[in-house]
Amino acid sequence: MGTEASSDDGHHRLRASSASSRHLHGVGGASAAEVNLSARRPFAEKLWSELAETFFPDDPFRGFGALPPARRAWSALKYFVPALDWAPRYGLAKFKYDLLAGITIASLAIPQGISYARLANLPPIIGLYSSFVPPLLYAVFGSSNNLAVGTVAAASLLLASIIETEVTADENPQLYMQLFYTAAFFTGLFQTALGVFRLGLIVDFLSRSTITGFMGGTAMIIILQQFKGLLGMKHFTTKTDIISVLHSTYHYRHEVQCELPVQFHHWKWQSAVLGICFLLFLLSSKHLRKKLPKLFWVSAIAPFMVVVIGGVFAFLVKGDEHGIPIVGDLKKGLNPLSISQLTFQSRHMKTAVKAGLLSGILALAEGIAVGRSLAMVKNEQIDGNKEMIAFGIMNIAGSFTSCYLTTGPFSKSAVNFHAGCKTPMSNVVMSVCIMLVLLFLAPLFKYTPLVALSSIIVVAMIGLIKVKEFCHLYKVDKFDFCICMVAFLGVVFFTMVTGLSASVGLSVVRALLYVARPTTCKLGNIAGSETFRDVKQYPQAKSIPGILLLQLGSPIYFINAGYLRERILRWVEDEDSLCKSIGHDLQYVILDLGGVTSVDNSGVGMLLEVHKSLERRGITIALTNPRLEVTEKLVLSGYVRDILGDEWVFLTVKDAITACRYALQMSRSKGEDEV
Amino acid sequence: MGTEASSDDGHHRLRASSASSRHLHGVGGASAAEVNLSARRPFAEKLWSELAETFFPDDPFRGFGALPPARRAWSALKYFVPALDWAPRYGLAKFKYDLLAGITIASLAIPQGISYARLANLPPIIGLYSSFVPPLLYAVFGSSNNLAVGTVAAASLLLASIIETEVTADENPQLYMQLFYTAAFFTGLFQTALGVFRLGLIVDFLSRSTITGFMGGTAMIIILQQFKGLLGMKHFTTKTDIISVLHSTYHYRHEVQCELPVQFHHWKWQSAVLGICFLLFLLSSKHLRKKLPKLFWVSAIAPFMVVVIGGVFAFLVKGDEHGIPIVGDLKKGLNPLSISQLTFQSRHMKTAVKAGLLSGILALAEGIAVGRSLAMVKNEQIDGNKEMIAFGIMNIAGSFTSCYLTTGPFSKSAVNFHAGCKTPMSNVVMSVCIMLVLLFLAPLFKYTPLVALSSIIVVAMIGLIKVKEFCHLYKVDKFDFCICMVAFLGVVFFTMVTGLSASVGLSVVRALLYVARPTTCKLGNIAGSETFRDVKQYPQAKSIPGILLLQLGSPIYFINAGYLRERILRWVEDEDSLCKSIGHDLQYVILDLGGVTSVDNSGVGMLLEVHKSLERRGITIALTNPRLEVTEKLVLSGYVRDILGDEWVFLTVKDAITACRYALQMSRSKGEDEV
Repeated sequence: MGTEASSDDGHHRLRASSASSRHLHGVGGASAAEVNLSARRPFAEKLWSELAETFFPDDPFRGFGALPPARRAWSALKYFVPALDWAPRYGLAKFKYDLLAGITIASLAIPQGISYARLANLPPIIGLYSSFVPPLLYAVFGSSNNLAVGTVAAASLLLASIIETEVTADENPQLYMQLFYTAAFFTGLFQTALGVFRLGLIVDFLSRSTITGFMGGTAMIIILQQFKGLLGMKHFTTKTDIISVLHSTYHYRHEVQCELPVQFHHWKWQSAVLGICFLLFLLSSKHLRKKLPKLFWVSAIAPFMVVVIGGVFAFLVKGDEHGIPIVGDLKKGLNPLSISQLTFQSRHMKTAVKAGLLSGILALAEGIAVGRSLAMVKNEQIDGNKEMIAFGIMNIAGSFTSCYLTTGPFSKSAVNFHAGCKTPMSNVVMSVCIMLVLLFLAPLFKYTPLVALSSIIVVAMIGLIKVKEFCHLYKVDKFDFCICMVAFLGVVFFTMVTGLSASVGLSVVRALLYVARPTTCKLGNIAGSETFRDVKQYPQAKSIPGILLLQLGSPIYFINAGYLRERILRWVEDEDSLCKSIGHDLQYVILDLGGVTSVDNSGVGMLLEVHKSLERRGITIALTNPRLEVTEKLVLSGYVRDILGDEWVFLTVKDAITACRYALQMSRSKGEDEV
Repeated sequence: MGTEASSDDGHHRLRASSASSRHLHGVGGASAAEVNLSARRPFAEKLWSELAETFFPDDPFRGFGALPPARRAWSALKYFVPALDWAPRYGLAKFKYDLLAGITIASLAIPQGISYARLANLPPIIGLYSSFVPPLLYAVFGSSNNLAVGTVAAASLLLASIIETEVTADENPQLYMQLFYTAAFFTGLFQTALGVFRLGLIVDFLSRSTITGFMGGTAMIIILQQFKGLLGMKHFTTKTDIISVLHSTYHYRHEVQCELPVQFHHWKWQSAVLGICFLLFLLSSKHLRKKLPKLFWVSAIAPFMVVVIGGVFAFLVKGDEHGIPIVGDLKKGLNPLSISQLTFQSRHMKTAVKAGLLSGILALAEGIAVGRSLAMVKNEQIDGNKEMIAFGIMNIAGSFTSCYLTTGPFSKSAVNFHAGCKTPMSNVVMSVCIMLVLLFLAPLFKYTPLVALSSIIVVAMIGLIKVKEFCHLYKVDKFDFCICMVAFLGVVFFTMVTGLSASVGLSVVRALLYVARPTTCKLGNIAGSETFRDVKQYPQAKSIPGILLLQLGSPIYFINAGYLRERILRWVEDEDSLCKSIGHDLQYVILDLGGVTSVDNSGVGMLLEVHKSLERRGITIALTNPRLEVTEKLVLSGYVRDILGDEWVFLTVKDAITACRYALQMSRSKGEDEV
């Protein structure tokens, strides 16, 4: 095989004795160049291979078969509990890195935990609780070495916006919190179920464009929500859309202005100035990171510094009495059990389930995408379905221990990655740090100014509005841009759920449209070669008089069978009138099925109809290069054997053309003889 | 072009000066063999061509552009009103055929109209009304020469089953009828809208398997419904599922038995005997048609004969007094206007809209499928979207003139076709016949025994349970068989809507699964040729050491991008360990994109990720034969130009292999030099 591929095509050449005998393929020696029409896999094998491809596309148990039973069980256990895999080989060398990374992400986890809990209108301490238990569990069950577990802004706001349709935090804080725990429980159940039943493909339905638009829109409305904190306001809307928020910002300013004109201005002024200072500091630390990537740790601990500096400042100037609202009391102590607080009353359950499923999908999409993209840099593998189980376990356990929804957020995981983490141990380190904070330092965070949290959120969110990505999408694919914009505008102007579902709906419609209208093209011969290509793409490609060569792409299903029939007949008509204009008859239509990956009952029926229709016009049909699955169906349905004839199925386009030409010449010379 | 395609591949051969310079393509003279990377259509052109393919797949206005404006307007008018096209050329020669066909289908329309109206629990006269106005309109606007318009069994039962959830015919016959008219009105609006907006592709979502199963199931429950007529029962369930119907049949027999034991037995006995006679007669006429296709007219007029004989018999023996229930009074006179009876109260509207849309889709699917399959035999063309408008107009007008839903039913159209109809004029003839019946003969049908109608329905329905087709599906495609069975069992055991929607849902899930899990395969060289084929399908195909050749099929979207990335990396890993075991390194991966008809933003991102991932392993990637649309996206996104390099895109697999081999040899000889 070290030499050039031989261009001897002796095997391909026809041994047709006569066109009318229709026995166009040779018998002996030509097997290499024929379509294997007897290839038929048993049903069980086919079903198994299809199920395996659908549900185990990453084939996690590859290579287990060769092991002895005990080793196999151990491998399977290691597959489900990855900690068993890395822990025995864990040593001080790795721990140094993980310790550093763990402390760094802990410094980020404290301000983020408090901020996002406030974003969800939850007591701030819940944010810290949520950074304690789930990371420990992820360290045991998770397969990503880079993911740092914690709460996320988008899902926090989504949960709040759904649960507030049932009850607001002001009306009944106890029930409000219970619904968050219950939602986290359902999220966990749902994620585990998806993982166990290998349904990771549901997450695939969130396309990049949808996620880009959704994240951008969410970041936008989260920033808008921060008006409350930045302007030191007390009353605010529970809605998330831009119009409600702007209206609320304006309306309550006015209202408060009337009642307490002077104090309001004081509040606003102090909070706003402090906010601007924090924003400038955070933005410049972020800018620094871009300029000098080695100083990433500055931007990593900047939020923590903002919290500390803000807290000290607020403590010194007694901020809460001078227009700088603070977080307020934080109780010392570890997570209390919340298992008894899960509420399964049918009245509230619907909301909790809805919130749980939607935020669960979102959290999965973010967590898995982050895990995968970081793993790719290190050339590691992430098993999406196993990750789902890990997320699910951590959320179920979280819902029992006063935590709300957690996943692997992008910002924290990236910091973890850059800080040099080696294993999930960094999550354990973070968890221990948070534990220490909860046990001893929590009350100190009482003085954290709300405006500090708001600025942290704003800066974290600005990076998520990816204007460049929008432009790129517009340039490359207008439809993807639409999908992205639907998500963005839907979130900004309506609700998060509306934006997300409209965008997913549009993506699915587009995918179905692609399936419904597959590309077909006429092939021509590229001069001086045996290559046949789309004449539209390669205008120099020449067609062969009397023979129409069509390439069908994509599977043939019920959805597109009708269209393909019309389209093929239209090609035939066009070609026919073209042929007639130069004094030929169209006599052969060759369908190149190389791009048809599968065919269903309607598809076979379509081929049959086209065949009959062409037969009535005196045109002969030939098929080339059907794939394995297509060949099976065509043979089983009797189309190839009983109607078309085996001899009209060819391995290559060239073979088909040769056969057609031979038959053409035979019939022409016969015609001349008769004349 | 009359000679063999030259096998000179000089243009393909590489002129690489050095592998490290990566300038692998030749410059001059080789343009014919290169992928045209500058091919980029303007956005407007691309959008237009995509919209045209999506909504005008049959390109109805083809060739209009060349005409002068006046002729063009006339052509357009003729397109919308096909009668203008055929009427001027219509003469006595054609009329002879249409007259015969029209009388034949009228003889079928009378018993079918009465039967199906009774199936829908409507007064029998409505069935005759529905065979008068709609055919006239179809003759003007319809484009099929073979379709015979009338009511259909499946849609009649569907309408009844939906409307009876709101009100039953016994409770409020007036409202019940009004809802039928209103439903027909919405059906018409919906069908017209679908046609105008060229949304015919919605009908494509009803796959052959779904329709086969649904029709079979419906036929089954319709036959079960006939127990009422065949056994001469008065009380019956309004539900359609097999369990309710059997239970009702048993239950009411028992009840009536207790109250009127003797009379009941008399009734049952007479009706049943008469029914069996009719059934035998109809079945044997059908059998005759199969044996002697020329005598099709016997089976065509057999139902009419059953009605006449039954009527005469019932009249003579005073059947209604002796256990043979009859149809009862039929009023003389043409359709009264019903436009004032349409009810748009929000209370009932929802039901009417639901009934209208569902039965409308079903009616369209049947009408268009029938029209197409009959047209195909005569080699005519049917424009699905135009047909929808014709159906829509005829249903709207029907709803104004006391008609309920009509379409082109299979049985009647087939009879029309076999009777030799030439144009839609046969519908006019039928319409005139029905008019005469309505004006003069209607009262005569008063004596038609219900059992005669039941036997007509049973025989018509038996043919719709296509056991052979079920077996065929089971043999060819197990999944299609499942889809079919879901429809069948759903209809039989639950409701018609359940069966239909479950089956459509399953079909769509399957289509999405196919999109989500496209086939990939490893290609190998078929010995003695330049052909590369799936090694699984052609075990004799040999792979090339150090080079992995993968073929991707189907479009690359967000739905399958994640899967394809995993799958490609898995192929690479498998091949890598295979290569290592024989002492090679895997150095090149060639992706054959010939089967990839389109790619979206996620797809391009996937290629980029795979590229980076392979680069980190020291593996070079090459693409072959990207199609027009894919090339555009790859170039626009910057992947080809900035990351991959133009020189790694090849026109054919052979070119790519040659280039890789050349580079391999260069690096090996370089390595040897260094040693």
